[in-house]
Amino acid sequence: MSILSLCEPKYLELKNRLIQIRDLEVAASVLSWDQSTYMPTGGTYARSRQIATLTEFAHEKFTNPAIGQLLEDLRSYEKSLPYDSTEASLIRVTRRDYERAIRVPSEFMAKFCQHQANAYEAWVKAKSVKDFSLVQPYLEKTLDLSRELASFFPYEHIADPLIDYVDEGMTVSILRPLFKQLRQKLLPIVEALTSASPIDDSCLCQNYSKKQQLMFGHTVIERLGFDFQRGRQDETPHPFTSSFSIGDVRITTRVYEDNFTEALFSTIHEVGHALYEQGLALELEGTPLAEGTSSGIHESQSRLWENMVGRSRGFWECFYLQLQGIFLQQLGCVSVSEFYRAINKVAKSPIRTDADEVTYNLHVMIRFDLELAMLEAKLAVCDLPEAWNERYKSDLGIVPADDSEGVMQDVHWYGEMIGGRFQGYTLGNLISAQVYEAAVKSDPEITVAIEQGNFTLLHNWLKQNIYQHGRKYTANELINLVTGKPLSIDPFISYIQAKYSTIYNLKQALNA
Amino acid sequence: MSILSLCEPKYLELKNRLIQIRDLEVAASVLSWDQSTYMPTGGTYARSRQIATLTEFAHEKFTNPAIGQLLEDLRSYEKSLPYDSTEASLIRVTRRDYERAIRVPSEFMAKFCQHQANAYEAWVKAKSVKDFSLVQPYLEKTLDLSRELASFFPYEHIADPLIDYVDEGMTVSILRPLFKQLRQKLLPIVEALTSASPIDDSCLCQNYSKKQQLMFGHTVIERLGFDFQRGRQDETPHPFTSSFSIGDVRITTRVYEDNFTEALFSTIHEVGHALYEQGLALELEGTPLAEGTSSGIHESQSRLWENMVGRSRGFWECFYLQLQGIFLQQLGCVSVSEFYRAINKVAKSPIRTDADEVTYNLHVMIRFDLELAMLEAKLAVCDLPEAWNERYKSDLGIVPADDSEGVMQDVHWYGEMIGGRFQGYTLGNLISAQVYEAAVKSDPEITVAIEQGNFTLLHNWLKQNIYQHGRKYTANELINLVTGKPLSIDPFISYIQAKYSTIYNLKQALNA
Repeated sequence: MSILSLCEPKYLELKNRLIQIRDLEVAASVLSWDQSTYMPTGGTYARSRQIATLTEFAHEKFTNPAIGQLLEDLRSYEKSLPYDSTEASLIRVTRRDYERAIRVPSEFMAKFCQHQANAYEAWVKAKSVKDFSLVQPYLEKTLDLSRELASFFPYEHIADPLIDYVDEGMTVSILRPLFKQLRQKLLPIVEALTSASPIDDSCLCQNYSKKQQLMFGHTVIERLGFDFQRGRQDETPHPFTSSFSIGDVRITTRVYEDNFTEALFSTIHEVGHALYEQGLALELEGTPLAEGTSSGIHESQSRLWENMVGRSRGFWECFYLQLQGIFLQQLGCVSVSEFYRAINKVAKSPIRTDADEVTYNLHVMIRFDLELAMLEAKLAVCDLPEAWNERYKSDLGIVPADDSEGVMQDVHWYGEMIGGRFQGYTLGNLISAQVYEAAVKSDPEITVAIEQGNFTLLHNWLKQNIYQHGRKYTANELINLVTGKPLSIDPFISYIQAKYSTIYNLKQALNA
Repeated sequence: MSILSLCEPKYLELKNRLIQIRDLEVAASVLSWDQSTYMPTGGTYARSRQIATLTEFAHEKFTNPAIGQLLEDLRSYEKSLPYDSTEASLIRVTRRDYERAIRVPSEFMAKFCQHQANAYEAWVKAKSVKDFSLVQPYLEKTLDLSRELASFFPYEHIADPLIDYVDEGMTVSILRPLFKQLRQKLLPIVEALTSASPIDDSCLCQNYSKKQQLMFGHTVIERLGFDFQRGRQDETPHPFTSSFSIGDVRITTRVYEDNFTEALFSTIHEVGHALYEQGLALELEGTPLAEGTSSGIHESQSRLWENMVGRSRGFWECFYLQLQGIFLQQLGCVSVSEFYRAINKVAKSPIRTDADEVTYNLHVMIRFDLELAMLEAKLAVCDLPEAWNERYKSDLGIVPADDSEGVMQDVHWYGEMIGGRFQGYTLGNLISAQVYEAAVKSDPEITVAIEQGNFTLLHNWLKQNIYQHGRKYTANELINLVTGKPLSIDPFISYIQAKYSTIYNLKQALNA
């Protein structure tokens, strides 16, 4: 008998088990989506338990030694197949997931999850009363537990295993120099842009009716390629994307009537995530390969659509007349140029999620450096607020008014872990520029098409080169495959220089 | 050591296992609710698989011999406790569920479920083209499988185990004479009412805006006691109630703009189910006791609120002015008496779900008798349409225009099984009258309060006497406990006679 015929039944058994495990995970995710969108408040208590049960069973089924045995038995089958075949990829990726999962005792994960829930609650309270000391003991425990989690793995830097959870293959030894380089390049650019005469973006902060914002957003994202037969949009306090299958990918948004940009750009951002999930190859359906390959690659797709497309001049050449028609009173006297400048205003602000695409990475790198320092035990949690404020002063020239707009502004450390939570955002920006550069290089018509409201060229290119593969390739493999180069800061810096030197009319200063 | 201290850990282990199993079942139910309400069509394929996986795992966990062992070990603990204690009830009810579950091989259930899905599809098609022959082979197989399912259990009548699934303790030997009696009483009443001069109900079939219907319905059900903090209402093609926890009970409705009664009364009907689920004792939360005790008792609560309350004169004394205010054009010239008569018009019609409360049971009993005849092999599936039409002729004096409004009108036999599917509807009507009579007898203020728009008296009485107990008592136990008598047709017949002799001004004829 050939290896193939010997192994196929085991491959099918593995695949079926994985699909069922994923069904449990997806069910948890539907319950969580429901909790954020439609669940009455009375359901909260039971819902947390229901989600925990599903997660526990999924974990229990996945760490069953039978999975390990199947993976072992399938080694030669895997080797007999091309690296990027679905079969070999499923075995390879599952092996990595499995080896990660069995290293961490379930009791530890349960304890950590419970602590995360407690820390989150403490953060909500501490933030509302602007008192870091209320959350400090929780954060100290989070740091201990994050270090303990890392200790279950071999590592070069203690943050590496934590980063590896979401950005597999990325390590501190890759990221630290890359981010250092990026920061050195960005600081003078930000300085130059924020010293230039400021852009007037007051046109964006008039009254924009919610209903019309949602209608316009709907038109835009349908045109970008979001398939409403295989997805939907709802409203939640914090926008997110959920995928329950390739045929059911949902986004959410929030609308502020006094701020036009929030709903639209966060919607386009989520659509970037959703197009990725809707664009997976159908043969991956239900398997662990059926999702984006890393936090950084996923974020690159949301940022590509949000920034490279949504905040581009070409995009607004296409959509601005329609927008003006809807908001005649607000935008009737604002030219497309003024509008384009307004949505691309660069400013030093204390809040990461409000930041423009130039300063944004400075915000992220502050957190990245601080979490490394904490993990390395070079920074104590009690000294974090001060360290935070110092870095905001040195990098952005501002000091937060208080800790609620400073060190307590982001949920991540308080509801998740310390380590691995932030690099994905900056990776996303870097990769988005590198991928977009490659796309336009391979088909220069892409930008022309966008001006004409045709997003299919770009969408198809991304489907072909990125979306369809799911988790077959790691981020680094995919970047090399798609762009022909390893990850680099150059495309992002070039993109920023080209775009903002025009917007701010600062050719010389930016290209220094 | 006492029995208590020996057994408590085992009781807790059982309870924890049961809660987790229920979490899986609830998750399946949330996924199913989502599919009916908000899921994009693209999600259908994966969703069916996800629900099947959850159901399979729940079954697997429940039929684990460890559950049987725990139940065995807990026998003396159970005996040491009062019958109606939560602990003894949980053990007792779980034992019954367990013994039922382990008798049926999982492979059989999977095969039956798959067949039900196929039969359902065939029914949808056959109904649309009005051709029974297309679904006949599926129904034949359903009959075989239903008989096979029954054969896993000991029985006196082959339908008994099937009835027992949803109306535990009810048997053909109880139901057949009861229904025979009921039919004999009802036939002359229906004849008298439908021979009397017909009521003009044309006022109900004008144009009623959907938005206003929903608003009015919302006001009504909030007043009845539906807690929107612990529930919600959505729209679906077929109304239903889902409970995901005592704090999260959801109803759905459908609105026809050309028919005022559909949305309102189906909403009140579902609210009856929902009040039951919202009114369970909190200590039952998450356990198998946390639901209505049987199909008949559940239906009694929906019918009580829909008919005894919603179609009562007192109810409209309270709400009619408000309704008139909303639909002034449609109802401005219709008096409350005329309106009350219109919503209580009795008519012979071919469709069960459109039937008034007097003829309704005739529809149900036709199906009950026919399914017994099929199970007894006295009626072949190929002869079913003819038998159906004959019974409609003899009982209701009408012959369906075709099989789509005849034998194919109800989904049950086609998407579920043959046997045990219909008795709950008539039991519900009988029990609703018996329970309402007991409620009003114990507190005559209840009806006065309703006229004044105060539903709390009734609601509290039902919570106290029925809702809180969940599945602690069987239907028969509960009926005896609450009404002091075994199940009887008398309260229902008295209710019908009293109400309709007034409406139709036919005192003598009805009380014969």
